[in-house]
Amino acid sequence: MKQAFEITDQEVINALLADAAYGTLALCHENRPYSLPINFVAINGEIYFHGAKKGRKIEILKQNTYASFSVVESYALIPSYFSSTEGLACPATHFFKSLIIDGSISFVEEQEEKALVLQSLMQKLQPEGKHKPLHDPLYTKAIHATTIYKLTPDETRAKFKFGQHLNKERFEMILKHLEQRGEAKDLQTMALMQQLKEK
Amino acid sequence: MKQAFEITDQEVINALLADAAYGTLALCHENRPYSLPINFVAINGEIYFHGAKKGRKIEILKQNTYASFSVVESYALIPSYFSSTEGLACPATHFFKSLIIDGSISFVEEQEEKALVLQSLMQKLQPEGKHKPLHDPLYTKAIHATTIYKLTPDETRAKFKFGQHLNKERFEMILKHLEQRGEAKDLQTMALMQQLKEK
Repeated sequence: MKQAFEITDQEVINALLADAAYGTLALCHENRPYSLPINFVAINGEIYFHGAKKGRKIEILKQNTYASFSVVESYALIPSYFSSTEGLACPATHFFKSLIIDGSISFVEEQEEKALVLQSLMQKLQPEGKHKPLHDPLYTKAIHATTIYKLTPDETRAKFKFGQHLNKERFEMILKHLEQRGEAKDLQTMALMQQLKEK
Repeated sequence: MKQAFEITDQEVINALLADAAYGTLALCHENRPYSLPINFVAINGEIYFHGAKKGRKIEILKQNTYASFSVVESYALIPSYFSSTEGLACPATHFFKSLIIDGSISFVEEQEEKALVLQSLMQKLQPEGKHKPLHDPLYTKAIHATTIYKLTPDETRAKFKFGQHLNKERFEMILKHLEQRGEAKDLQTMALMQQLKEK
């Protein structure tokens, strides 16, 4: 059964991965969680990261390759009075897109593949280019000194929460309030509410 | 020894916790990580969350109370050409504030304390009020049906990365480029660069 707010359309999921500059990587070490925010690029359904050759996360990954990676795009805090006529606090909520990918991590060892991953990361975060391409021999040493690792997904859970569960009256009240507040992100939120409600 | 970019000033850390609407909570279950984005409120150095009575995270927490919670505020992607005159990709970077709190979670059981936590959460996310206070008997049932849990920190690591490691020439180049780009967040980024460099 599809969960409330669940999104399964892979194109929609890919767009979120393409838009997000960073996510949060969670690992386990001796039954304790370790988490860190990190830049990433998604290529063919796998999530690639880069970092130094040494450090705590590399040490942990050598012992336990399981990972949970999450990405959030926050859209709007929805105050309770946007949808409550009775002055209750409970309807206060948060509209957002989130994605959680659970899987296993492996290291990318081959120099050419490492260069391709870094090139893709640059293409994502600096699409205007303006740098020498990563396959240039200039980068050989730097790439050698960089660790690249990838998360291969076992399970992906995407959740877009934009009031799909609300009755028509509350839904319309929120739309009206967002229009009145009128911040740039509020207009995007309204568009997403309409779009997801229609499905 | 203080790490690069490390922030230890508790007031600065508290301000980041007060500004962030959500963070990412990481748990471990049978040596596999589980992570999820979640709203929170910090009270007296502890991090409080709320949620339903049932669900995967509650089941995990009953078996393993260790948690790692992270908060990020992203400021600016810094393209490589902001600080490289040689067309290299390597100087591309990301300026951000991040905070990672590792600790243990316990459940808040007492009704009055639960109401206080929810009141603080509302105060944080909806400071304009406009709702009946949470100690009103109207909420008794709803609070009873809500799980409140708190993270008591063992270790807190805050990292503010705003070019503190760069030499004067590159630092000044980035300031100039940010001024030219001139987005709202770029001006905040410039102010933080100056402020952190001075320390």
